[in-house]
Amino acid sequence: MKIEHDIVLAVRLAEAAGNAIRPHFRSGLDAERKADASPVTIADRSAEEAMRRILKAEVPQDAIIGEEFGTETGTSNRTWVLDPIDGTVSFIAGRPIFGTLISLLVDGWPVLGIIDQPILGERWIGASGQPTTFNGKPVRTRACRELSQAMLATTGPHYFDDHQGQHFMALAARTDHRRMMMGGDCYNYGLLASGQIDVVCEAGLKLHDWAALVPVVEGAGGTMCDWNGDPLHAESEGHVLAIGDPARMEDVIEALACHH
Amino acid sequence: MKIEHDIVLAVRLAEAAGNAIRPHFRSGLDAERKADASPVTIADRSAEEAMRRILKAEVPQDAIIGEEFGTETGTSNRTWVLDPIDGTVSFIAGRPIFGTLISLLVDGWPVLGIIDQPILGERWIGASGQPTTFNGKPVRTRACRELSQAMLATTGPHYFDDHQGQHFMALAARTDHRRMMMGGDCYNYGLLASGQIDVVCEAGLKLHDWAALVPVVEGAGGTMCDWNGDPLHAESEGHVLAIGDPARMEDVIEALACHH
Repeated sequence: MKIEHDIVLAVRLAEAAGNAIRPHFRSGLDAERKADASPVTIADRSAEEAMRRILKAEVPQDAIIGEEFGTETGTSNRTWVLDPIDGTVSFIAGRPIFGTLISLLVDGWPVLGIIDQPILGERWIGASGQPTTFNGKPVRTRACRELSQAMLATTGPHYFDDHQGQHFMALAARTDHRRMMMGGDCYNYGLLASGQIDVVCEAGLKLHDWAALVPVVEGAGGTMCDWNGDPLHAESEGHVLAIGDPARMEDVIEALACHH
Repeated sequence: MKIEHDIVLAVRLAEAAGNAIRPHFRSGLDAERKADASPVTIADRSAEEAMRRILKAEVPQDAIIGEEFGTETGTSNRTWVLDPIDGTVSFIAGRPIFGTLISLLVDGWPVLGIIDQPILGERWIGASGQPTTFNGKPVRTRACRELSQAMLATTGPHYFDDHQGQHFMALAARTDHRRMMMGGDCYNYGLLASGQIDVVCEAGLKLHDWAALVPVVEGAGGTMCDWNGDPLHAESEGHVLAIGDPARMEDVIEALACHH
């Protein structure tokens, strides 16, 4: 019962964030892009403020961690984790594949996650004990019989340091490299939940970047973990894997570990 | 006068291709992805067939070069160049940032180009002597005062060989690398025409990959050339640059040339 109420609240947050973001997409004011008042900064801040306003009114006892305005402590065991625009570079470039990320942690563990694309009107919702939905319809990750057939995605190699890049390349070499896909941020994890991509591998993600992805991916039948195969937690160093077919998890971890 | 008729015909091609492609996007039949009958192959072929049917009926004297079905010679000085799905990997992954590319060459030179995104209903049209339009409205590339502020995009580093990659990295180091963007194929050139991105740099492009981009980018005020700054031609080796602000062309060429 309870999670249903939280889903309704999280959807209200997503709607409020989308309303704050949409006017600034492709608004053509990027001339001032170095200033504080750039469209992406305005969109980011006003979306997070809109979400915080709702949370403070509805669940004042819950803590909030937001990408833009930091941490607000609470008195419950619940924390809302907000990233108003994940995929800032796509947003700035006018590519509608960024997303608003909303997550609820209970005792530090993400039990609810939303990936919302406000320009396309696309929304993945994941919640503990429920099938992940995309625009209201259940979705599933797909089977992947062999790692050599896996489609791998990452936002960009420039987000890896040299060492991380070597491990990533070792994994890439074992997947179907003709179909490796760059760019995409949180949107790739939604597509993985929808059975369109097999593996996403990234480094340097913060809690607000990955918390919402866990319920979405796992509620669709996939697995999220760090590069050693361990569960992600708030102190993880941000090496994030999403694997659509859990049967390929060992292969992925082994491939990532084996670089020269 | 004449180009107006060609634009109307090219738009008919784009509509026909879109109708052929849409049913196969996220169709969930990727299980057979290795077989000839994969959704992307069906979509690619049926879109090109639909466009060829119209051309054969309307302009049988014109030559056709298509990505899927090769070259059909003609008796005029005109050649239609077709790429039904540019950005195959994005299509397969369910990302709506692939495009149908349609170009008309006259005496080998692209005088008309369309970048069509059939899922989002987005269309850039460029034609000699006319301003480029996006969904019917004129668009312009943006000014870029310094290369260090330039936003650079490329589909992926895995499309470069080692040598090309070194040159690309030399360019990337001189641009605003915090905003470098990966993925996107033809869609990035449309965004450049719309003033959202400053430079796109790629290698290995074939005539059908770049012909349609030239009128779109140049009709919006930008420049397209090879990595030496020379105009693209049918025998170019596929090192393609799009530069939104022509005043930055020398800086870009110089940065690309200077690798260690």
